[in-house]
Amino acid sequence: MTYKIAILGASGYTGAELVRLIATHPQMEIVALSGDRKAGMAMHEVYPHLRHMDLPALCKIDEIDFADVDLAFCALPHATSQAVIKTLPATTKVVDLSADFRLRDADEFEKWYGKPHSATDLQAEAVYGLTEFYREKIKTARLVAGTGCNAATGQFVLRPLIAAGVIDFDQIILDLKVAVSGAGRSLKEHLLYGELEDNAFAYAIGGQHRHLGEFDQEFSAIAGRPVRIQFTPHLIPSTRGILATAYVHGEAGAVHYALADAYRDEPFIKVLPTGQAPNMKHVRGSNFCHIGVVADRLENRTIVIAALDNLTKGSSGQAIQNANLMLGLDETTGLMNAPVFP
Amino acid sequence: MTYKIAILGASGYTGAELVRLIATHPQMEIVALSGDRKAGMAMHEVYPHLRHMDLPALCKIDEIDFADVDLAFCALPHATSQAVIKTLPATTKVVDLSADFRLRDADEFEKWYGKPHSATDLQAEAVYGLTEFYREKIKTARLVAGTGCNAATGQFVLRPLIAAGVIDFDQIILDLKVAVSGAGRSLKEHLLYGELEDNAFAYAIGGQHRHLGEFDQEFSAIAGRPVRIQFTPHLIPSTRGILATAYVHGEAGAVHYALADAYRDEPFIKVLPTGQAPNMKHVRGSNFCHIGVVADRLENRTIVIAALDNLTKGSSGQAIQNANLMLGLDETTGLMNAPVFP
Amino acid sequence: MTYKIAILGASGYTGAELVRLIATHPQMEIVALSGDRKAGMAMHEVYPHLRHMDLPALCKIDEIDFADVDLAFCALPHATSQAVIKTLPATTKVVDLSADFRLRDADEFEKWYGKPHSATDLQAEAVYGLTEFYREKIKTARLVAGTGCNAATGQFVLRPLIAAGVIDFDQIILDLKVAVSGAGRSLKEHLLYGELEDNAFAYAIGGQHRHLGEFDQEFSAIAGRPVRIQFTPHLIPSTRGILATAYVHGEAGAVHYALADAYRDEPFIKVLPTGQAPNMKHVRGSNFCHIGVVADRLENRTIVIAALDNLTKGSSGQAIQNANLMLGLDETTGLMNAPVFP
Amino acid sequence: MTYKIAILGASGYTGAELVRLIATHPQMEIVALSGDRKAGMAMHEVYPHLRHMDLPALCKIDEIDFADVDLAFCALPHATSQAVIKTLPATTKVVDLSADFRLRDADEFEKWYGKPHSATDLQAEAVYGLTEFYREKIKTARLVAGTGCNAATGQFVLRPLIAAGVIDFDQIILDLKVAVSGAGRSLKEHLLYGELEDNAFAYAIGGQHRHLGEFDQEFSAIAGRPVRIQFTPHLIPSTRGILATAYVHGEAGAVHYALADAYRDEPFIKVLPTGQAPNMKHVRGSNFCHIGVVADRLENRTIVIAALDNLTKGSSGQAIQNANLMLGLDETTGLMNAPVFP
Repeated sequence: MTYKIAILGASGYTGAELVRLIATHPQMEIVALSGDRKAGMAMHEVYPHLRHMDLPALCKIDEIDFADVDLAFCALPHATSQAVIKTLPATTKVVDLSADFRLRDADEFEKWYGKPHSATDLQAEAVYGLTEFYREKIKTARLVAGTGCNAATGQFVLRPLIAAGVIDFDQIILDLKVAVSGAGRSLKEHLLYGELEDNAFAYAIGGQHRHLGEFDQEFSAIAGRPVRIQFTPHLIPSTRGILATAYVHGEAGAVHYALADAYRDEPFIKVLPTGQAPNMKHVRGSNFCHIGVVADRLENRTIVIAALDNLTKGSSGQAIQNANLMLGLDETTGLMNAPVFP
Repeated sequence: MTYKIAILGASGYTGAELVRLIATHPQMEIVALSGDRKAGMAMHEVYPHLRHMDLPALCKIDEIDFADVDLAFCALPHATSQAVIKTLPATTKVVDLSADFRLRDADEFEKWYGKPHSATDLQAEAVYGLTEFYREKIKTARLVAGTGCNAATGQFVLRPLIAAGVIDFDQIILDLKVAVSGAGRSLKEHLLYGELEDNAFAYAIGGQHRHLGEFDQEFSAIAGRPVRIQFTPHLIPSTRGILATAYVHGEAGAVHYALADAYRDEPFIKVLPTGQAPNMKHVRGSNFCHIGVVADRLENRTIVIAALDNLTKGSSGQAIQNANLMLGLDETTGLMNAPVFP
Repeated sequence: MTYKIAILGASGYTGAELVRLIATHPQMEIVALSGDRKAGMAMHEVYPHLRHMDLPALCKIDEIDFADVDLAFCALPHATSQAVIKTLPATTKVVDLSADFRLRDADEFEKWYGKPHSATDLQAEAVYGLTEFYREKIKTARLVAGTGCNAATGQFVLRPLIAAGVIDFDQIILDLKVAVSGAGRSLKEHLLYGELEDNAFAYAIGGQHRHLGEFDQEFSAIAGRPVRIQFTPHLIPSTRGILATAYVHGEAGAVHYALADAYRDEPFIKVLPTGQAPNMKHVRGSNFCHIGVVADRLENRTIVIAALDNLTKGSSGQAIQNANLMLGLDETTGLMNAPVFP
Repeated sequence: MTYKIAILGASGYTGAELVRLIATHPQMEIVALSGDRKAGMAMHEVYPHLRHMDLPALCKIDEIDFADVDLAFCALPHATSQAVIKTLPATTKVVDLSADFRLRDADEFEKWYGKPHSATDLQAEAVYGLTEFYREKIKTARLVAGTGCNAATGQFVLRPLIAAGVIDFDQIILDLKVAVSGAGRSLKEHLLYGELEDNAFAYAIGGQHRHLGEFDQEFSAIAGRPVRIQFTPHLIPSTRGILATAYVHGEAGAVHYALADAYRDEPFIKVLPTGQAPNMKHVRGSNFCHIGVVADRLENRTIVIAALDNLTKGSSGQAIQNANLMLGLDETTGLMNAPVFP
């Protein structure tokens, strides 16, 4: 059986990545692509790399007949997403890739995103989309909220460690090296090739990054008490990928065991042998996440490093993984393509 | 039905690319991977991006039982390839990715590769692997010689123009911009990141590049008289891709028509509307080739630009396309994955 | 003696490059920096790499007292430059880096730049700023028009060959590989890091690039009859540099001799031994231009390759070289810094 | 007055960088360049970017007459450096860029470098070359040991904080993002362009990096008790630069004050206003170091970020700064060139 898919906000990078992945998905067919400012254009005019595909032209959202749609991916900007999703038929399954439904608490949402939530009913209903940890709820959800790409990476490292109680919850530092596609196709000076090449810099330093809202929510829930980590991302000259370095207080053996145990049967999360660490490029273009654990020379200090592709496992790949579950398909359908290296 | 595949020389980039593509090929199963110096290692120790796959360990070629192999890809270095292939059972289908069987004339081979051919019988039997032009012969071939990646790009541009007689055969200039993976995983100073970043330079300038042997052979055969083009490749700071700029004497309309006509039904070759030109990154990681035609301001001068991924359409993707034909499969099986952009 | 310098339009890349070079110029002192939209800001707020310098804040042009200025560099956008320069005191020496005064013919200007020239008197007076060929006129000029960066590169290759009559004037092809800083600090999608990395594409294909106006003007003047070349630039993933590949009909020995002879005593133009070709990165950040000559395998066909840094020798370095002459200084003053490699 | 300079080991990146900087140094003249395996070659054959300079050919060290040399830079590999320097005339001033004389304790040297020191007398005599903190001793030293590039960056951040006692000495984490030229011109797979582009990975994780020997020695000396930090470097796709992120326990105001106070009069170290952080590219090609301080959202946690160019301030620029002092010159002579941006 083939399911009919709509992608709302198809003109951004996550939209294009959804199309790329669905191109070889055996049970999904794209029936609608919306792109407000680009309505009327062919998708290959916006993304010529999709030229070989037979795709519907970009349209406005209100031109879509959702009766014909089994599942909609919503890759719209934050805030727009809320406004759109609340207008969709209640029967349409939705995987949202924006930040709008990641935080369950309305106050937390307002704190991090600067305005009140306009669809608090949906906010309450939405299931957090970190598949490996919300799998059962996702299967029956109508609305799944895709996680932040940095938030996903940090959680793959830290959730099992907090759950297992093998680290000090008050001494967690997460230093991220992130590729530029995480910022989307936005015209900003610091994203220009000439500015980023041979460059590197931290941003949202010291606890200003919005994905902290997700960390706070999830880690505190696991720990059963407030957990506040330090998190600073750094932009590096690369296009796809996140490399997360977590500095924790805990014993490396216990840390490695907790991770290996948590991910033993996971198809996409690979824990490396102790002492090995992942390369960002070893997961590029794929839905895989590699995690490594190394003991520090200082007693009871451990370094955990994770790599994933922000556009795939961190966003559109995760979205398809969730959609597979919501549609009753095998979770890995269409997602087993190998990383593109070199 | 699933066919059993061996990859000889799996530790190079084209070997790894074959594995990547076969990972999602529904009718190929890898049963043997050879890697002489790395025999005994797991493939993911050499290429950690393949960690998620269940692959045989690297072995020596003489450890492979070819009775169990439906088709072997031979990704060995030039010269080694001849020596190995002549020892394989005559019943084993072989797609060779080296240069050893590209040139049909023994003297030409010696001229370009500096030593006599050691398997001239096989040389005579081998079919040239440019699928779009040798499709019927490939279907029944036992040994197919994969083309050079630059040679493939140049031929996609020029073969239809020579065949249609729409350009001056004595005024053809081919200027290539090539990514570094074409040089393989070889330890050379000029391939280091620090040397190539922000750099660009021509090499094998003015007619020294070995792929000219293929151009000479093929273009002369089409034209029915000797054709000698100018061809100079330039290394640019990128990992995958070839952008070929051909300067020809001929009328743009006729040039565009000849190309559009030749590739009208081809699944992988896409001719852009007149006046548009391709981007190298728009085919990255895929088996597609984009071609564009633009008229010069000077009368009767036309520029044709083509883009493909040297490791995929230029090498391992082409090899699988040929193998599909040799095994009686649909030519596109396992090759319709979309380019990875951005 | 120290000369007082104003830089109009200091917030662009060529403005910043002027400041960088003047930082170690022993006889220039920056007394004014204009930046219309950024007036009031410190230069290091716009360009933090200049933080160590003691520079005047950005101001509006009309706040500058030109009585105090010995020479003004005008790094304003095309068209704006004309409008501003005609309001400056007639005693102020000006080196313009825009395209406004490069073409001597008003019709040609309108043809390439799409609107009539508004300062035709100045246009008639301006000296073309290709130092090596206009040195004597520049010494006494009041207004010097900096060349296009692509135009400079192509002329360094072709002027001596046309002057010496050693090539066929009707068979000249110039294929450029250019770095992204030539496009300035402009917010365009194709200049984003994620779009340009691992990419390459031609633009202004087939005779549409405005620098052709300069080629037409200069080459025709040298030849004494119209000369029209083919010229297509390609953007490659790099920040600084131009690599020009010229395909000419002529004998390599004569071509090399003409170039070596023309540049024998030039401090900044280095002709390599026959058969060698330059690397783009070997001139990065410097005012040098390297040129190489290689014979093609086809008789009477020669390839000439040149490399320079578009922001230095192609623009701001050239401008300072000209300013040095206009101020009676040694031409090389402040410009002998070595390229930055790797 | 001009001083006569020899560079031993001129064929590596730090050797080439010394030549680049001396090219515009008004009081240094290069009289000898050694390069053992490349003896007899012209420097521009090894580094064509230095083609414009009139340099002595590479020679063997024993061909140099040190009576004619005022100061030798020794850019030889570790261990080789000891062996060579102990054979030089005792009157020759030496700035060593290897690791051989950085550690004062013979046991510590053996621990980190794996073999006993062969010139312990010189080891005892050598002055540690972190100019800003050893300035007076350097002025009268005969042998100065250039610091590790990572070691320099970390110390610029942490020395003033330890000296001022404003941070917890037992909770210091240093996460470095380093460019590839720090590894030198060495032929290793992971340094190839195709492998590093779009990649990032940690190495020497968890306390294995040799520069920790310098941190241990220096920080413990300042604190008057053992200080052991956590330090993990990450290779990122860039050529020049180090971005150091230090996570410390201490109050941001006090941290900023300690840094601003320590570097108030330093010509090369620039402390940014509180809340701002540096970009790696803002110091590229220069001898400057930028440092920024940002408070974390967690109480008493502060992030300090520093950027410098590993080949300049981290190595060859530092070496010239020290040489200037040893020769009685102004410390900044020849080093005030502005960073190359973009």
